[in-house]
Amino acid sequence: LIDAVQLVNSEENMGIHGKNIIGFSKVTNSNESSFAYNPVTGERLAGKFVSATPEDLDQALLIAKKAFEIYGKVSQIRRAEFLEAIINEIMNIGYELVERATEETALPKARIISERGRTTGQIQMFANLLRDGSWLEAAIDQADPEREPIPKADVRRMLIPLGPVGVFAASNFPLAFSVAGGDTISALAAGNPVIVKAHSGHLGTCALMGEAISKAAQKTGMADGVFSLLHGSGRTIGQSLVQHPYIKAVGFTGSTAAGKLLFSLANDRKEPIPVFAEMGSINPVFVTPEALKKRRAEIATLYAGSITLGVGQFCTNPGLIIGLESPELDDFIKELGKKIESIAPSTMLNKTVYKGFETAYENIISQPGVQQEGVSKDDAQKERHEARPTVTSVTGKLFLGNPNFSKEVFGPFSLVVKCKSKDQLHEVLENLEGQLTATIMSEEKELSDFSKAVDILNQKSGRILFNGVPTGVEVCAAMHHGGPFPAATDSRFTSVGTFAIKRFARPVAFQNWPESALPDELKNNNPLNIWRLVDNIQTKDAL
Amino acid sequence: LIDAVQLVNSEENMGIHGKNIIGFSKVTNSNESSFAYNPVTGERLAGKFVSATPEDLDQALLIAKKAFEIYGKVSQIRRAEFLEAIINEIMNIGYELVERATEETALPKARIISERGRTTGQIQMFANLLRDGSWLEAAIDQADPEREPIPKADVRRMLIPLGPVGVFAASNFPLAFSVAGGDTISALAAGNPVIVKAHSGHLGTCALMGEAISKAAQKTGMADGVFSLLHGSGRTIGQSLVQHPYIKAVGFTGSTAAGKLLFSLANDRKEPIPVFAEMGSINPVFVTPEALKKRRAEIATLYAGSITLGVGQFCTNPGLIIGLESPELDDFIKELGKKIESIAPSTMLNKTVYKGFETAYENIISQPGVQQEGVSKDDAQKERHEARPTVTSVTGKLFLGNPNFSKEVFGPFSLVVKCKSKDQLHEVLENLEGQLTATIMSEEKELSDFSKAVDILNQKSGRILFNGVPTGVEVCAAMHHGGPFPAATDSRFTSVGTFAIKRFARPVAFQNWPESALPDELKNNNPLNIWRLVDNIQTKDAL
Repeated sequence: LIDAVQLVNSEENMGIHGKNIIGFSKVTNSNESSFAYNPVTGERLAGKFVSATPEDLDQALLIAKKAFEIYGKVSQIRRAEFLEAIINEIMNIGYELVERATEETALPKARIISERGRTTGQIQMFANLLRDGSWLEAAIDQADPEREPIPKADVRRMLIPLGPVGVFAASNFPLAFSVAGGDTISALAAGNPVIVKAHSGHLGTCALMGEAISKAAQKTGMADGVFSLLHGSGRTIGQSLVQHPYIKAVGFTGSTAAGKLLFSLANDRKEPIPVFAEMGSINPVFVTPEALKKRRAEIATLYAGSITLGVGQFCTNPGLIIGLESPELDDFIKELGKKIESIAPSTMLNKTVYKGFETAYENIISQPGVQQEGVSKDDAQKERHEARPTVTSVTGKLFLGNPNFSKEVFGPFSLVVKCKSKDQLHEVLENLEGQLTATIMSEEKELSDFSKAVDILNQKSGRILFNGVPTGVEVCAAMHHGGPFPAATDSRFTSVGTFAIKRFARPVAFQNWPESALPDELKNNNPLNIWRLVDNIQTKDAL
Repeated sequence: LIDAVQLVNSEENMGIHGKNIIGFSKVTNSNESSFAYNPVTGERLAGKFVSATPEDLDQALLIAKKAFEIYGKVSQIRRAEFLEAIINEIMNIGYELVERATEETALPKARIISERGRTTGQIQMFANLLRDGSWLEAAIDQADPEREPIPKADVRRMLIPLGPVGVFAASNFPLAFSVAGGDTISALAAGNPVIVKAHSGHLGTCALMGEAISKAAQKTGMADGVFSLLHGSGRTIGQSLVQHPYIKAVGFTGSTAAGKLLFSLANDRKEPIPVFAEMGSINPVFVTPEALKKRRAEIATLYAGSITLGVGQFCTNPGLIIGLESPELDDFIKELGKKIESIAPSTMLNKTVYKGFETAYENIISQPGVQQEGVSKDDAQKERHEARPTVTSVTGKLFLGNPNFSKEVFGPFSLVVKCKSKDQLHEVLENLEGQLTATIMSEEKELSDFSKAVDILNQKSGRILFNGVPTGVEVCAAMHHGGPFPAATDSRFTSVGTFAIKRFARPVAFQNWPESALPDELKNNNPLNIWRLVDNIQTKDAL
């Protein structure tokens, strides 16, 4: 290991190094490496990113397991300080981060700057959660030695961390769902060491963010091993990470195929572990007749924007719009098509995402009966990996008979389904798989006419919107970003918002434990002043 | 179906019928059937229990899915009334329930009566939880239309039910973990229809309890299909239940092999579903040197009782006692052996449980180096399926080298492990799989000397006890009955206590939803007066 650390990468002075970050060490033990590219120009960017070897992975896990013994018991306040130090280190990277992320993903600088704000805001939210302390579901049932026929024991419960967590960075949010994104931060907040697999689509950004976390851990005196960042392919290092016996949970955001694979590897382990995979979604939108009558132009404008926002590269992108056949629906489709025509093609995140879009797009537009309703009037430049905004339509009958129409096209694309009756509408909705979001564009008074449709959408999705667009996921306590399979592998957890922390913690009950040895959260005098359920009453009072 | 209903079973007037309960109908469509036996006498008991056909299962699921549309939205108060009606119907069965359960399981009448109290108490606890309403994790983040750069949406979240839940009755608690046990009641409380597979070990008890739930559902006007009880083998009807596309979650208590099988079937579905399986555990107990010096006789008496309580047929039975080699440990083992010798063999729950005990017992006592330290001085009568209380010992070294010593022997059996050093103690503890419970018998001042042992036990278990016995699981809000795999399939959930309801509910977020269409739980004026997290503050206040 010492030898490896001494191998100084030539890019180091530029701030971006391609080494694996294993705790506080940096290692390059493999001959394999990869490079970052600008998807617009195809140009190779600075940095040679050396793959992690199986031994590197073992080492990262070994020190993570050891770090857990300390970090898992560090006070919530100290963990909050660590998180806040991560914010500082991210901001300290300065403009280099914005530039590099822009070069690697083709996302505009303004978007990267706002995503950085979202990322640091999210970290602060978890730091605040820790300072408040009430998220631990602390509960106390006091003893009753006089109870008949058996005395009642003193039982106190709180959440404790699971152990080392593996995180897979996502391509479409190079900051907010990547190395220092919601998965890493919520797992760290809960008290778990984290090992991240860097995303091949933004290797330099990953390296910068990984360095920031590692530095913050050192500066705040966290245990060596609390964070590692590994490079390498999903097939090798990614799968081994999920299968490693020291890993106790996994957070993933990405494609359905990759998410399902990791889920199944995790379940087939000798000790199965929870995998929270947030996967594909086509985010159905039902537009009611009255809404179409009153606001079809407005809705068309709103949705043309939502479909093409960020080149359509959001897991909440509205890929399916459903209406009842009517002249107004036809007008709406025309209007939406016209709006889409006026939106220029843009470069996608990377070559892989572009290829995926191309394949999915060509599959769907080659299905019998699909109508093209609007395509960007500008040609897309293939060599710049540009996606051409497109809206199509199909009848309810054809939709129901062909599962290809329910497949996600990740990019600036949407399909309008024209249902000939309310019954067919219900059938179309019933036919949908689990979704991250469902939206109803409706007049308020019409909701009761469509209560069945609303009920079905409610059952199918994790978030249900009224008169809005599903893109834009507010980071807050009430947010739920997840949904029935295949939107996520476990509909009971969210990957956005404070409750994301619950994925990486488990309850433990202390029975008749002496006051002196109880965690502060469960001591009689409630020294942390947290909310607790005491004998079934929510209170901050001491016992 | 109508024909089937008209087939009147001759046992009907005796209160025990062997029909499948499918919602409000009773059907006997199969030629296959099974019978109940008294494990003490071998005598066949009243009732011919007809297996469910695949069509019966389909029918139960079809009406469950339909019932869910109504029951999933019924108010919490009405659900509480349904649960309380179940209590009434259980009490209305009267002494017949006590007699039948005793005949079928060989458990003493006093135990059955107390278990009935525990079962109805548990149902009342969930009814109270529903009347209180605060369990739904309601959270509201209010809109901020003025926020820059993007306005903030109104987001409100609460838990909603998952859909039809499959429940597998357990053998060792014929009331509290069976047809009307914690799994069924917590799933019903959350708003899910339930389909129970009756346990072959207490078919008549299952039938009586199934009738009680079905009657309660009818009397309180619940939808037909909210509850079904099916007979048949685990291999046919049990596996089909888990694989049925309409089933959305599973609750199971029983053997590791069966639990793992159901877990894997559920994960291999097209739409994987959560399975909460509470499986085996050997419930390690570490006895410290000072505790042995001061209280070895007292601890021996306490543990002889805990090991043999209910013929050792508890998932929290202390199957492994660990100490550091010393004359006091030898004395303790002798004392424990003597106590065990004085406890008479007793009939186990049924032939299958007895056979399982016999096999596991013979496996462990045939391992090289195991010492018999005490065996009941009375012979066990095989034809009465009696288990002979036994305590054995082994050195830490042999324990570490032989995985057979970590296998559960479900019955009145325990193994004492003699560690030669603190390091070996830590190795033994590290070597353990996930456990429901871990116990430390210790003087308070010694805890700091054994903080590493406590930390390891904490990481390995769902409940950690100080100076007590793990048998006896208090049903309360702070209880956690679960633990890292293989104690349970998901360490983040409990099967005992009010939090058991969280297994069967998922969050959904309502975004910008009009007040008139919001569930009462999320309305501005908080009409149900529940605890809610409003803009990150816990409150019962209206907005």
